[in-house]
Order: sequence, then C-alpha cells, then structure tokens
Amino acid sequence: MENSEGRRLGIAIVGAGGAVATTAAAGVELMRLGLAGTQGLPLAEVAPGGRFSRVGDIAGYTALVFGGWDVVGDDLATAAEGHGVLGHRELAAVGPALSVMRPWPAVGDVSWCTNADGRHLIVAPSKRAAVEQMREDLRVFGEGVDAVVVINLSSTERMADLASPQLATLEGLERAIDEDDPGIPPAVLYAYAAISEGVPFGNFTPSVACDAPALVELATDRNVPVAGKDGKTGQTFIKTVIAPGLRSRALKVDGWFSANILGNRDGEALADPESNKSKLQTKGSVLDDILGYEVEDHVVRIDYYRPRGDAKEAWDTIDLVGFLGEKMQLKLNFLCKDSILAAPLVLEIARLLDLASQRGDGGMQEQLGLFFKAPQTPAGQRVEHALHVQEELLLQWLAGTGSRTE
Amino acid sequence: MENSEGRRLGIAIVGAGGAVATTAAAGVELMRLGLAGTQGLPLAEVAPGGRFSRVGDIAGYTALVFGGWDVVGDDLATAAEGHGVLGHRELAAVGPALSVMRPWPAVGDVSWCTNADGRHLIVAPSKRAAVEQMREDLRVFGEGVDAVVVINLSSTERMADLASPQLATLEGLERAIDEDDPGIPPAVLYAYAAISEGVPFGNFTPSVACDAPALVELATDRNVPVAGKDGKTGQTFIKTVIAPGLRSRALKVDGWFSANILGNRDGEALADPESNKSKLQTKGSVLDDILGYEVEDHVVRIDYYRPRGDAKEAWDTIDLVGFLGEKMQLKLNFLCKDSILAAPLVLEIARLLDLASQRGDGGMQEQLGLFFKAPQTPAGQRVEHALHVQEELLLQWLAGTGSRTE
Amino acid sequence: MENSEGRRLGIAIVGAGGAVATTAAAGVELMRLGLAGTQGLPLAEVAPGGRFSRVGDIAGYTALVFGGWDVVGDDLATAAEGHGVLGHRELAAVGPALSVMRPWPAVGDVSWCTNADGRHLIVAPSKRAAVEQMREDLRVFGEGVDAVVVINLSSTERMADLASPQLATLEGLERAIDEDDPGIPPAVLYAYAAISEGVPFGNFTPSVACDAPALVELATDRNVPVAGKDGKTGQTFIKTVIAPGLRSRALKVDGWFSANILGNRDGEALADPESNKSKLQTKGSVLDDILGYEVEDHVVRIDYYRPRGDAKEAWDTIDLVGFLGEKMQLKLNFLCKDSILAAPLVLEIARLLDLASQRGDGGMQEQLGLFFKAPQTPAGQRVEHALHVQEELLLQWLAGTGSRTE
Amino acid sequence: MENSEGRRLGIAIVGAGGAVATTAAAGVELMRLGLAGTQGLPLAEVAPGGRFSRVGDIAGYTALVFGGWDVVGDDLATAAEGHGVLGHRELAAVGPALSVMRPWPAVGDVSWCTNADGRHLIVAPSKRAAVEQMREDLRVFGEGVDAVVVINLSSTERMADLASPQLATLEGLERAIDEDDPGIPPAVLYAYAAISEGVPFGNFTPSVACDAPALVELATDRNVPVAGKDGKTGQTFIKTVIAPGLRSRALKVDGWFSANILGNRDGEALADPESNKSKLQTKGSVLDDILGYEVEDHVVRIDYYRPRGDAKEAWDTIDLVGFLGEKMQLKLNFLCKDSILAAPLVLEIARLLDLASQRGDGGMQEQLGLFFKAPQTPAGQRVEHALHVQEELLLQWLAGTGSRTE
Repeated sequence: MENSEGRRLGIAIVGAGGAVATTAAAGVELMRLGLAGTQGLPLAEVAPGGRFSRVGDIAGYTALVFGGWDVVGDDLATAAEGHGVLGHRELAAVGPALSVMRPWPAVGDVSWCTNADGRHLIVAPSKRAAVEQMREDLRVFGEGVDAVVVINLSSTERMADLASPQLATLEGLERAIDEDDPGIPPAVLYAYAAISEGVPFGNFTPSVACDAPALVELATDRNVPVAGKDGKTGQTFIKTVIAPGLRSRALKVDGWFSANILGNRDGEALADPESNKSKLQTKGSVLDDILGYEVEDHVVRIDYYRPRGDAKEAWDTIDLVGFLGEKMQLKLNFLCKDSILAAPLVLEIARLLDLASQRGDGGMQEQLGLFFKAPQTPAGQRVEHALHVQEELLLQWLAGTGSRTE
Repeated sequence: MENSEGRRLGIAIVGAGGAVATTAAAGVELMRLGLAGTQGLPLAEVAPGGRFSRVGDIAGYTALVFGGWDVVGDDLATAAEGHGVLGHRELAAVGPALSVMRPWPAVGDVSWCTNADGRHLIVAPSKRAAVEQMREDLRVFGEGVDAVVVINLSSTERMADLASPQLATLEGLERAIDEDDPGIPPAVLYAYAAISEGVPFGNFTPSVACDAPALVELATDRNVPVAGKDGKTGQTFIKTVIAPGLRSRALKVDGWFSANILGNRDGEALADPESNKSKLQTKGSVLDDILGYEVEDHVVRIDYYRPRGDAKEAWDTIDLVGFLGEKMQLKLNFLCKDSILAAPLVLEIARLLDLASQRGDGGMQEQLGLFFKAPQTPAGQRVEHALHVQEELLLQWLAGTGSRTE
Repeated sequence: MENSEGRRLGIAIVGAGGAVATTAAAGVELMRLGLAGTQGLPLAEVAPGGRFSRVGDIAGYTALVFGGWDVVGDDLATAAEGHGVLGHRELAAVGPALSVMRPWPAVGDVSWCTNADGRHLIVAPSKRAAVEQMREDLRVFGEGVDAVVVINLSSTERMADLASPQLATLEGLERAIDEDDPGIPPAVLYAYAAISEGVPFGNFTPSVACDAPALVELATDRNVPVAGKDGKTGQTFIKTVIAPGLRSRALKVDGWFSANILGNRDGEALADPESNKSKLQTKGSVLDDILGYEVEDHVVRIDYYRPRGDAKEAWDTIDLVGFLGEKMQLKLNFLCKDSILAAPLVLEIARLLDLASQRGDGGMQEQLGLFFKAPQTPAGQRVEHALHVQEELLLQWLAGTGSRTE
Repeated sequence: MENSEGRRLGIAIVGAGGAVATTAAAGVELMRLGLAGTQGLPLAEVAPGGRFSRVGDIAGYTALVFGGWDVVGDDLATAAEGHGVLGHRELAAVGPALSVMRPWPAVGDVSWCTNADGRHLIVAPSKRAAVEQMREDLRVFGEGVDAVVVINLSSTERMADLASPQLATLEGLERAIDEDDPGIPPAVLYAYAAISEGVPFGNFTPSVACDAPALVELATDRNVPVAGKDGKTGQTFIKTVIAPGLRSRALKVDGWFSANILGNRDGEALADPESNKSKLQTKGSVLDDILGYEVEDHVVRIDYYRPRGDAKEAWDTIDLVGFLGEKMQLKLNFLCKDSILAAPLVLEIARLLDLASQRGDGGMQEQLGLFFKAPQTPAGQRVEHALHVQEELLLQWLAGTGSRTE
C-alpha cells in the first residue's frame, strides 16, 4: 500500500523477546505478507506512511525493522510461540522471518524487577561500559535503516524516586553511572544511551525512564524526542473515553472501582507488590484530571490470574450521582488482549517519534499523550487525559498547525 | 445563586403530568428550596443563568415556571407521587408547590399512541379549533413570564410518514388541519400551535413533531427556534461516548447488541410494537455515523419490565476486531434512572431555545444536537452523533463564535 | 479406558450434519484418537461405560457410532468445517473418519421450519412411504451395531397443537399419515418411525416430537423408551441451578429478564418468529416450578446475532426481594458455546436411553429430566426442574433403586 | 401468625450495636408491628415457630428478644440510624422499641481487631473476672425469657493459631484465662463464658471462637450446642449454589476470580490486612470441596469501597473448560446488602441452636452448615459446602430423622 522505497525505520526494543514486542514484529511481517490488515492501527487512515505534512516522511508499517535487547536470548519465533498470543497459522507464516531475529544481550537487574532474571546479559565491567555497548548496538543497527528509535517494553520496575541525586539532575546521573551506583534503574540506562546517541526514546512501561529530570534535561539539550509513559491500552483507555462523557452530562463520579486480571509475564511481574505499586501510580490520577474534582474513592486493583494468559480482563463499577442527588451505576467489562492492544500503539509511537525527529522537535512530545497512561508533561503543567482532546492535539500536530511545530 | 430578578421562563410541557415533566418541575422547586444542587445539569457551570455572551439573558434554573397539557388531569403532586421517581422527603417538600399545578386539557389520540387514553381533553369542534385553544393556552401562560417555550414529553407515537401530504409541505398541513384529517399526529398539532404563536418548540420524544418538513418550513418562515428529537439519556448517550473512542483506536466494531429494560409508563407505551418501532429508529443510525462504516450487526432491543419502574437498565455487548484480526469484547451495564437523566436535559433545552430566540436564531438549532438521539439536521447534511463533538459545537455557539450566530 | 469389546451403540441423528451432531461425532472420534478427554461429559465418572448396575451394559463413549438423516447431503467433515465449532487441529484429526460419513436423505418441510430448505430429500410417494424408508434406514444401520437410538437435533419447528386430531391420539396420527396430512410436523414422523421400529427416541429440540400424546401412547404400547424435550444447555441450565438456591434463602424473585444472543444456524432458525415462539415456550415455566410461586415478570428474549457464530451469550438480570422487603439484584453473563455444551448431553442421553431399553423401561424416561428444558412428565404431574433434584433422580435410577426400575 | 404465648428466646449478641445486629432487632420489631413479612427468612415456611417435630418448641420470629454487648454504648435506635441500612419509615417505626435497648459493656481488644476501639468496656481486674461478668449478664438476661443463645457478630479479628497452647486444649485455655494471657482473642472469651453457662453459641464471624479445640472440648463435655463459622451471605452463598451445577455438567473450573467491594464498618475492619486474611481463609476452601479437585487459580479479593455503604457488590468471573477442552466463561454480579442477607440467618441460627438445646443435641451442630462459609465439622471429616446438600441435612434433622437426633 505504501511505497516500498519509502523511509525505513528501525525499532530497537528493550525487551525484544516479550509478548508485545514479538506481536509487533510478527504483525509487521504479516502485513508484509498480505495476511493482516490495519485494524487496531490508529493512524492507518490518517497517516499510513509516505511524505507527510510540511516536513518529514513517515515510515510505512511494512517498512519497519525490528531489533533490540532481551535478558532471554531466544529468537523471536521461539519467544512468540511461548507467549501464546498468535495462532498456529500466524506463527507458521512469520516463523521464517522471526526465527532469524535474535535479541542483543541486555542489562537486567533483579533488584529493580524480579522478573528480569534472564541470563542473556551484556558483559561489561561497569555501567558506563554497558551504556557504551548499548550505543554501539544502536549504531550497528542504524547502518541498515534510515533512522532508529528505541521503545522500552521491559517488565515494570519497582518505583524509583525522581528526586534522588541519581535521577534529579543530569550531572548526578552522569556521576552515578561513573560510580556504578546501584540506584539507577536499568530503564534509565537504556534511555540515557539512546538519547546520548541522538536516538528518540519511547517509554511504554510504568518504569521511570525518560521522565527522570536528568533525562528530560539531556533530551532537551540534545533536542532528541522522548515520550512516555505506560501505554494506554485496556482499562485506562476506556476510562479516558467514558469519564469525559460523564463530565459532559454533569454526572458526579462518587466512586470508581477497577479490577484487572491478567495472566501473562507482565501480570506475573505485577504480582511483585513493588512493581504493582508503580503500575497503580500511573493509573491513579487519570480521573481527577478529566473530571476536574477529586474522586475520593477511586480504587484500582491488578491481579495475576493464570487462566487468561495474554487475554486480560477489566471490570469497572462506577457510582454516579445525578439530578437531585439520585444514585446510578455504570459497569464496564472489557475482555481484551494485552499485546494485541499494545503492539499497534508501539508501531505508531515509533513512527511518530521518528517524524518528530525529522521535524526537529526535541524533548517531550506532548502530542503523543493519547498513547500513554501518564503522559509526559512539562513540570507544573496540567496533564491532559481525555482521549478525544489528546487525539485532537495529535491531529493538529500532524497537520502541522499544532503548537509543537512552532 | 442567580439573580432572582433575572429572566423568567415558562416551560409548557406536552405531557405535563408525566414522570419526566414532574421530575423537572419538582427539581426546580427543590433547587428553589435549597434542597437540591445542580448535579446532572450539564450547563450548571458554564451557563448557570444571567446575562450570557453577546446577546441575550439565560434564565436561571430557579426562574423556570411550569405549565402544560396532559390527557390526565391530576395535579402535579399527585402525578409525581404515582411515578415513584422521588422519595418521600422530596415529595413532602415540593407537595405544596406542585399540588396547585394542574395540566391544561390536552389532545390525545389512541390511534397514534395507545397510551394516550386519558379523559382530560380539549373540547373543540375541529382540529383547527383545538389548535386555537393551544395557542390561547400559551398566550395566557405567557402573561406571567418573560417568555415561553414548549417541550414535547408525551408518550411515543407510532411512526408517521414524513412524505405524506399532511406532513410534507406547510400547505398540505394547513389543509389537513382545516379538513380535520386523522393523519396528523397530535405531536405535530402541538408543534404547529407553538411555532404559529412564535414559541420555540423542543421535541424530546421519538415522535414526529417539528421535524416534519411542513413544520421546518413554518419555523424557518417565522424564524422560531425548534430542536429534536428524542432525548439522549441512557444507552444511546453512553454509545455516543464509547464509539468515538473505539474509532480513535481503530478497533473495528463487528457487532453491537443492546438490550434495554424499563418499567415506567414510557416503557409500557413501547410494549406497543408500533411505538417501539419509532423508538428503535431514532436509536439506529447512531453508530454508523460515528464510526464511518456500516455496522451490519447492530441490534437494539427494548423491553417493558415492570420490576424496575423508572429505574431502567441497559446492557450492551460489543464485538471488536483489533490488531491482526483478533477478537475482543466490551460490555456495558448501565443501571440508571430514566426521569433523573431526562429532566435536567429538558431544563437545558428550554433555556437554550429561549436564548436562541433572543439571539434571533430561528429554525433548526443544530447546536443542541448533544441532547438528542436523532439531532435535527438540514436535509442532505451528515448528522453528528459523537458527544464530544456535539458538546464543542454548543460551547462555541454559547461563546458566540459558532456558525449559528452568524 | 473402557473395554473396546463392549456394547456398540448406533446413534441415528435427525439433522446429522448440524453443528451439534458433527461436534458429537467429532468428539467421539477425538476421544478414540486419544486427543480429547471427558470434560463436559456428566457421566464420565459415574457411568463411563461397561456393565452397569443390575441390568444392562452401558456403551462406552468410544463405542458410539454415528448415522442419521439431513436435508443437506454434505459429508460430516465438510459440514463440521462449515459450522466453525472445531479448530483446525481437531478438524484435521477427525477429517478422515468424518469425511466418509454421509447423511441419509431426509424429510424436510419448510412449512414447519423455514430453515429446512435443503435438497437431500427422501423420494417417496407418500408420508407412509417416507416413514417406511426411515424404518428401513434404521434396520440397515442396526446391522452393524448392538443397538440403535434416534436423537432429534434438527432445527426448531413452529409450534404444533398437541390437541389437534393428528397428534392427540395414535389412531388420529395413523390416519393422518395414511392421508398425507400436511398437519404432521416432520419431527413427529421421525419419532413415529423410530418407536414403531422399537428404537428409543430422544428429542433434543423444542419441536413437538415424542411428547405428542399419540406417540406417548405408541411408546407405552410398544414399551420403547422416549425422552425430551429441548436440551438444557446454557441459560436455562444455569437458571435451574441458581433458582433453587434463591428459594433456599427465601429470596423472592420479583422479576427475571433473560437475553440470549447466538449466531449459528439454530439462531437463524429462531429469527423466524414462529420457531422462536416454540423455543420460548419450553424456557418459560422453569422458574415457577422451582420457586413454588408465579414469577409475573419472567421475560426471555432470543436474538440472532451473527458475530458470535456458535459461541452464544446469555445475560440475565434478576430482581430479588429479601429481608424487610429490601431489593437486590443478581446478574449472570454466560459466554458459552452452543454445540460444546449440547454434544456431550446428546451422547449421555443416547447411552441412557439404550440402558433403559435393556432394562425394559419403556415410555417416558423421567429420570433423564436433567438433560431437558421441558422434561417429559406424565400428564397432570408436577414437572421437576431443579438440577440437583433431577440429578439425584438419575443417580438413583442408575443405582437401580429409582422408581423407574420397579 | 405464631402463638404469642409460645417460647420466648433471648438472643445475646456480641456486637449488639452493629449493622447486622440492629437490622435483626429492627426486623423482629417490624414483624411484630406487622410492617414486614418473612422474605429472606429461610425457615419461614418449613419451621415458622411453634411445637416442632418430636422434641422441642421452636421460637417464633416475633418471640425473639435482643440483648448483648458492644464496645460502643449507643442505644440500638441511634446505632441503627448510623448504619444506614434501614429507611426513614422503618427507623421511625422501630425507634421507640430500639431506643430503650442499650448494649452491655463489652470486652474489646484493638490488638486483635483495630476496629474494636470503643470505650463502653467491662471494668474488670482480670480476664477471669471479665468472663464472670459476661456470665452474670447472661443470667440476668435469661430471667425474662425461656432460654438464651449467644451469637457473635463482632468485627473480624486477626487470625489466631488454633494449635497455640491457649486454644488447643481446655486445660490450656483455663490456665491462660487465669494468667490474663493476651493470646486469647475476645471472641473466645465470649464463647467460653456462654458455653460455661450452658448457653448455645453461634459464631457468625470469621474469627476463631467456638471452633478452637479447647471450646469444642468444653461444648462436648457440657453438651452445649455450638455452630460456626462466618455467615454465608453473599458471594460464597452464590458460589456454593453454582459450583455443584458446574460439577453436575462436568464443566471443569480452570479458574475463579472473585472481587468483593463493601463500604460498611465490616468492610473497614477488613481494610486491616490481618483481618482480611482471616476472612479470605474462610472463603478459600469452598470450591475444592464441592468440585472434588483443586482449583489452582481461585483468587478472592475484598476491598473497602465507601460509596456502597452496607450495599456490597460481588463480581465473579469463572473460567470453564468443557467438551473437547473448549473454554467458556461465566460471570456473576451480585448487588446485595450485607445486613439484609445476614440478619435473617442470625435469627434462624439462634432459633435452631435453641431447638438443638431442647433436643439435647450438644457440641458441633453440623446440620447448621448451610448458614456458614466454613461449617464446623469434626476433625478429619470432609466439609460439606454444597448448599443443596446442606439444606437437605437440615431438613432431615428438623424432621427428626437426621443423624444428629440419634
């Protein structure tokens, strides 16, 4: 559909062998083979690829190329089969292409994420040396494509303190890397390596990465686009669609209870209370921002539940107060698939970060907020969570009239 | 809260003793007594009342005065008690005020609505004479207030053919009235009387009223604002909130099944298959417009179910197709209250029709589309159903920059 | 698991190429190949096959052999693929066995069921001759097995009047057959042929078949076991599990609303209002019997909804009144698979009808009531619907102490 | 309805001012006034009161008299108003009767239950002295009635170790009381006092009480009936109704996820992780017993959620595996009211413990298992959880043919 001689974009994924990453890679291959359409790809109609707007080419879906790191060394065909997202026909079709993709050795640190216990690790005498290896990986990867972006899809790390000396300033971070300080989350190292190399970085996880002040500083200095955090896929996506409607009708949200169950590796990671806490935090503030008042009883629970595998389920029950103080309830039940919702967003974020880079738009990319549970926003500024407002911002930016292009 | 010396607006309701009408009247009285807040009133914050925008005063909620027709002659306190919407405390508080409100004799026609079988009827030798009586009612009502609007809240009539000679042209309608033609639905007579009298008319029911071409012609000629039809309260409201979000994420709607149960008088009327058909039609086209493609399997069912009374329930199950053709499901369950959702919209429509009248905006009021399941739209023009887009249109009009004000 | 030299039982199915029938046949084949376990088979543990109780051998699951009639002549492998119940792996495994099974020409009558429009028809000059052909089919089929039973799985026919002269007495039915009377539903012809031939007959559909008084008379005279009607698979199964519990806690059922959506051929047949009526009737009386009082507001809706295919969905909302008249609600949502729930019941009914035949238990088999929505019960006797009571009856009969064995 | 000169039974409640206790007392008063029927009372039809069976009178509902202890000293009218269970009309009707009921000073111990922080406390120099005070309270209460039973309705305590020296043997418990050992949960003290006084004891909470081996020993020695524990009201009640049905159809439960939200004082107590653990334990083993195999993924969550108050909500999603290994899902959503479900069970337990006492049936009352989440059962014996089996046991015992009466 798009010009095969168009721009080729390399996506280097942190956690390249994970469920979302392999679904993204397999999906692109299935599109290449004509076995999959563009369902679930938000920009398939408005920005399918090709020359776009005033400045810049946007890479077509089938011009995307995958690389990346993983603490498990399995090739992507093996990894994809293990995740159970794709059916037998799909696996058979993409097997040849995926079996030759093998992740690069990664940095894993079980003190930050108990799940990151693989043995396919970067051998380096120091954190600084590990960062150098990552940068070298990106340079080699970049030789075969027109540009590279990095997307973080690794398991959720425990919460880090953004005010700690290692993360608060670029100077502190540089020193911490030099001193092999254990207080640096691996996700931050990846972001540091990418930005230092001039490569855009998208953080699809709840972990602290390019939102650390130290890295915002670096991204601004180097004028490298960054965006995050935590992909808005299932329950929070629906929440940011429904809540604006409730506000429009002045239906007061007296409480909102959200249960989530999922059974994939991401779910297992969240069985660790520390990682769970990171996840819950990015989910928390969404409502208050949209509604314009504090919902005192906004409870969110996430539970690992094996039988579902990658097919997660969300159940929400919402207590509403309407005219004359009368109570009503709205309940939502979303039977969805984690990787199927996440993978297309990963492709769009990568394509748009690359477009921003071509346009010379560095630093935080607020117009990508619609893809994230906790959109990166300049300090002190109100965070926009309403999906339709976020979408309008992106469309304006794409059309070249958004504020980002000034 | 608003100036008590502000503009006084009279609302003449067709079906003044119904559940929605009495809830609206009681609600205004409760606000007057300081016993109810403004929950559920969409414009409570943006247009609470007082001088508004460039032209016109907007009536405050507590400056609304109720009148209207009903085929049942009970006073409004008695009627409200029978509907079971309000609690004992509320009924006790508003009893004195409502018990002195008694509907004017009405035109009912069981050949158009089996439910309209009351005996509190206009005694008139002809349809033309009945229309004259309605106009006289409006003139008398208007003496005590600054302005009057009419809102149709009567039970749903069976479907009428807009292309029939009685409804297709103003000339045909005039002749049909003169000839006492049984092919004129009562709702059309009310609309004809109001518009002839220069009084704005809002159609909150699925019946044919001011959307008949004959009446559009009259409203345009006389420059009288009209709006309809069928208040967007429960399931369709939620549908027009959710569907834009699904489109934003390119989640293909493969099917949408909607069940509704309700047990009030409106529900009983819908137990008549002909009235039910009218209702289903106004619900039908909503999805296709928003999504931009035809949803072949959009099934809507409405059932009368006594145990709920006024507290209706909607259940939706939506079949989605996402990335790589994978199937997912979203289910919605809305435990709501018909009159509690409808009454505040009635108040807002009345206040805005009056504002339009002051601004000199006659004919169809497209900026009120957010309040209706089937927004009245110029022939041949695409109907906008997405709630957030509709809301934006209204806000622009309120701010005086919308196209309606040119 | 069971003795391969055990009793071989032939199941002749009316509608042999349907979704339930092909799932049953494929399931037996998958068990034979060791590719399926006994999940979903209610008697897998208590009566897996082999010599059972005082009298009679019970056929093992893998000793079941399939035959039967269908108005469509496709082989069972082709038919199974079309129904979309089984996955590719299962279809591949059972393909060789099913592709050699081809239904016998059938009697179809679109005046009784609009769905029965196939062209693979018995060529016979009269109804009597068609019956003779069916009996001949059963005799030929019986040559290769130890015994035969017939199970009716054809699409639901429109309602028939059991008091009509054709159905009320055996004499009337004989005369009607002789006179080629169009007032005989095809299902009755099949039942007549089977019982006449001494072959047990199970009616898994809502159609009138062996419950016509004429056939009860015949089955009693000939001492042939019969059972029906309408397999209790999805929503009604759950209903007869829940309702006894509500009665145990004295929670008054004030209303019960049941919505069903399904997208298979059975669902299409029910889109015909006449067939739908038959279905609703067998679903209707269940509650009152269990609860011991009339539930005035028991509403059941069935809708054809293509996107689901064979995977039907039931949604129930139940209004309960508890201590001090307080209202509560219970909601059920069953995402199930029609043929997957039905096929194992078909196997059990067939095995048990055969056991009854060996025991000399002719006529209505009340102990099989747990498998049916409208259990066949002697005239004037209370129908037992509570699943746990029905199960107890069957277990007692199996143990040889039930009243049926006297 | 029952003889007003019948047996008068006093119910002494631990936690007499709680939501369940005040609902029970108010309910009896409303029945006495003819303002409430017998909905929700499981034995209203089979054992309404009066002479029953071979031995013993059963107290009628309106012959029940309330007393008991509470750490908060408010009269029951004040307490009931605070719980928000009853409406204004009910509160007004029972106010006069309830306002003269004032709980006796209680033993509370925040080290066992953080919620038990009231100041209406028994003043006693030692645990032994406190026990003596409780016994004195029971003797005084007993003077005005024919018999007394004690029911524990106090907030859930943290888990206690039944193998600890204080609880494992009667000798150990006696010594611990004498030594003022802090290792005795308050609930155990109440049970000890009641049994010592020959008064039957029912434990409606998840706390350790009469199921401590020390107290089983005492109850057996003194031949005093005891029963527990943890009233089976909402989600677990439904679970023990549904699970037997799934077993009947051989639908394998692959996983069962249960979420609970409630906003009353009981819910607040469960916000304490230690109390929550006690609660979850009594809920846990239910499924495996009924199904006959271990459900690996049975997850139960309970959350405090203020907006609901006493109206709790349960949501269950169940993963089923049926014929040919096909997956299905059943979801339950129970919108119920905690005290409304619990109070009538409390009345029944009290009446039946009294009947057992008259019959001379001491020790554990297994026939009362249907009222409890974790029915007290002799050590080493299988626990019966299926509601319909439990009900059958009770009915047999009532009829005098059950094993308990031998």
